[in-house]
Amino acid sequence: MKEDKDFMRRAIALASESVRRGGGPFGAVIVKDGEVVAEGSNSVTLLNDPTAHAEVSAIREACRKLGTFHLEGCTVYTSCEPCPMCLGAIYWAGIKQIFYGNTRKDAADIGFADDFIYEELERPLEHRRLPIHPLLRDEAQENFRLWEKKSDKVEY
Amino acid sequence: MKEDKDFMRRAIALASESVRRGGGPFGAVIVKDGEVVAEGSNSVTLLNDPTAHAEVSAIREACRKLGTFHLEGCTVYTSCEPCPMCLGAIYWAGIKQIFYGNTRKDAADIGFADDFIYEELERPLEHRRLPIHPLLRDEAQENFRLWEKKSDKVEY
Repeated sequence: MKEDKDFMRRAIALASESVRRGGGPFGAVIVKDGEVVAEGSNSVTLLNDPTAHAEVSAIREACRKLGTFHLEGCTVYTSCEPCPMCLGAIYWAGIKQIFYGNTRKDAADIGFADDFIYEELERPLEHRRLPIHPLLRDEAQENFRLWEKKSDKVEY
Repeated sequence: MKEDKDFMRRAIALASESVRRGGGPFGAVIVKDGEVVAEGSNSVTLLNDPTAHAEVSAIREACRKLGTFHLEGCTVYTSCEPCPMCLGAIYWAGIKQIFYGNTRKDAADIGFADDFIYEELERPLEHRRLPIHPLLRDEAQENFRLWEKKSDKVEY
């Protein structure tokens, strides 16, 4: 528990450093076997990359360092509850648990869209603000049949 | 409408090429003013990057090319309904509309976790399979106060 607090304090410090450097107020640390594997902070505006949130950046860095696309056994400490994009990335990476500081409501209170995006995702497709249309599903099925037939595929 | 189908067919072709090259069966195209700005395919296992889905890759590439973190006025054509990570990225990028081919249920049928992750995100934090714990919110608040006070911040 003391260790958990130490890692969270590092994520919080990264978020503060990020604000001073011109990035967003978010930091994250990925830990495996009690050691920090990677750190990240929100660099969306600094890097012109809307996906460069703290957690996504830390996940990419951890995978690069470990030479894997799966972070089994890793824990993420993030200064704020992950947005849907980052939470999705955490699931895809197979991370085992999450600790977070600020909440999505706290993030909404200072003008970030996390909570709005959560609400959108929960709506049926036809009730979302962002229009989403089905098109050519019959032709797109070909991709999935190719995948199923491929004998040497790397699954994840 | 004919144009929409052409762009979707390009996304589908990218997905098929991706399978042949050893990647996942997903492709995406980003279009602005009737022109393709960027293309992407699923390279998770090829690049050891769990965030390298087709849509995220195409968004990163489009932002790099256009020198911006905001893809206002862009449309994404994706061979499969975006997963929560990609849909989150699409919202953060400010994309105006989405066309998709296969559905999240189709993806689940061939073994991808998209639908499972959607279900997880909709659950209250304490009912998720992936444990998520609040920690040191009081200290993390410091980041957000710093952000609020910063007069020259770049918002998004």
